[in-house]
Amino acid sequence: MKIAIDMMGGDFAPLETVKGIEVYLQNKNPETTLILIGDEPAIKQLLDRHNISTENLSIIHASQVIEMHEHPTKALKEKKHSSIAIGFHLLATDKADAFISAGNTGAMMVGALFSIKAIEGVLRPTIGAYLPREDGELGLLVDVGLNADCKPENLSQFALLGSLFAKHILNFDNPRVGLINLGEEEGKGNILTQAAYPLLKENKQINFIGNVEGRDLLSGKAEVMVCEGFTGNVLLKFAESIYDIVQRREINDEHFNRFNFEIYGGVPVLGVNKPVIIGHGISHAIAFKNMILMAEKMLQKDLTGKIRNSLKELE
Amino acid sequence: MKIAIDMMGGDFAPLETVKGIEVYLQNKNPETTLILIGDEPAIKQLLDRHNISTENLSIIHASQVIEMHEHPTKALKEKKHSSIAIGFHLLATDKADAFISAGNTGAMMVGALFSIKAIEGVLRPTIGAYLPREDGELGLLVDVGLNADCKPENLSQFALLGSLFAKHILNFDNPRVGLINLGEEEGKGNILTQAAYPLLKENKQINFIGNVEGRDLLSGKAEVMVCEGFTGNVLLKFAESIYDIVQRREINDEHFNRFNFEIYGGVPVLGVNKPVIIGHGISHAIAFKNMILMAEKMLQKDLTGKIRNSLKELE
Repeated sequence: MKIAIDMMGGDFAPLETVKGIEVYLQNKNPETTLILIGDEPAIKQLLDRHNISTENLSIIHASQVIEMHEHPTKALKEKKHSSIAIGFHLLATDKADAFISAGNTGAMMVGALFSIKAIEGVLRPTIGAYLPREDGELGLLVDVGLNADCKPENLSQFALLGSLFAKHILNFDNPRVGLINLGEEEGKGNILTQAAYPLLKENKQINFIGNVEGRDLLSGKAEVMVCEGFTGNVLLKFAESIYDIVQRREINDEHFNRFNFEIYGGVPVLGVNKPVIIGHGISHAIAFKNMILMAEKMLQKDLTGKIRNSLKELE
Repeated sequence: MKIAIDMMGGDFAPLETVKGIEVYLQNKNPETTLILIGDEPAIKQLLDRHNISTENLSIIHASQVIEMHEHPTKALKEKKHSSIAIGFHLLATDKADAFISAGNTGAMMVGALFSIKAIEGVLRPTIGAYLPREDGELGLLVDVGLNADCKPENLSQFALLGSLFAKHILNFDNPRVGLINLGEEEGKGNILTQAAYPLLKENKQINFIGNVEGRDLLSGKAEVMVCEGFTGNVLLKFAESIYDIVQRREINDEHFNRFNFEIYGGVPVLGVNKPVIIGHGISHAIAFKNMILMAEKMLQKDLTGKIRNSLKELE
């Protein structure tokens, strides 16, 4: 498994990226090779300083960095030697099996969509995020911003992609899918959710349990909670802000501590041909280590293959 | 000021409604008359038991109750003698100036829209809700579920209605309006928010400060935060569930205690011809007292008149 890592992505890169690799290497999977993409002299110096052997690592120099504020499409086009552009090039040319970055989210999404492309049959790839449930498990909220406007059939497919992720990566046996809505009863909703409900109900590949409301998101009523990316993005950022407030107010609570989204590493892009994981800008070592582990798991379980097969069944 | 109260609405009515009136009467506004609508014998018995003089109260008997689970339009049509139907009849016939209920929310909305109707020029009345900010103030989230699907011009008008409420009822001098969106920059968003942004920007009657994200909702970046009712409803219920979790986990924190939506009483229907306030199903005495005070303030400040004048300016 060749996992490419953008060493320059994130507010604390490359130091925290190197530290994350250091932690990962303490329990390294023998079948994994890490490909470090970034400023080679800087990376080598840090590896040296942390006594990290380059034996199982390969380093690919990137002379450019896409900054956080840059326009995704423009930056990817103009900065061919950036770590993100090189990462997607490695994926597209089969020199890497998965790609991880905590850099410019937009550039990561554009790169995923246009370089490695959607799996055949996927109308729109999507991005999910974890919601920490009161029972200690993680729920998956999908989409969280990649698709601001959706059609009913997009939501039905997000449900399938999310279910496969919840089953194979989060280890839920028969993950329940809820449609995020403003009421519990069938027939409630806006035009989109009213039209999506019957599609989800008819979808034999998922375990649809009906509508879930805002109050159910953390309750464990469903493992996969589906909405268009506008609502999902606002909800996710709202949840993140709750954690910030909890921190500022020095509340130390086991459940709210799990609102620290950093501990989960990053969020997967679902429905593209290879695992792509997008980290939070503020990622530290532990987040980078967890993103490597997530990439490994997605490869080991062949999530992409399982998505491909599920879509073929529908043909 | 004749304020009508549905004595039968809410999970703990009529006992808590009576207790709320008891608390209110300790500091009664001499210009206010309360009109109590509900099961007359039951109300009289409770008033007696609480030693409440009926001097400044009038009681109107309602032989029916619209239950929480009933279909709003159907129930209003079939239960002409329900407390909610009678309340709206009093408003429509000028026998009451404001109406308060913690009963069936749907029936309250339908009643507000069809009995007293929208103020001339209001495309769609809306419902706002408070969001407790970290700085101790309250922000207004609008719409929270009355309008699941919106056009750009609806959002622009919600901004105006919310601004007038924030100015005259919440006492913000020049309330800032934020458009809830998935990014900060102009041009970000879904089809709706991209189209609404220029309308809000051109709207001379509001103090538009641009997009606000999920993380800004509690930060005090804007006093009025505008979105369609789908996102607003999911957000509000999510925020309510945070309070439930805080309670269950026995976290006693000044800020999170303000997530107890009951303390604010109820939410106003904005843009209809008379003040209508919808309480939470779980309202207790303090909520009912606060709803009466809110109705008084809306009448004293003539919020309806101010909305009417603002819309006339546009003609």
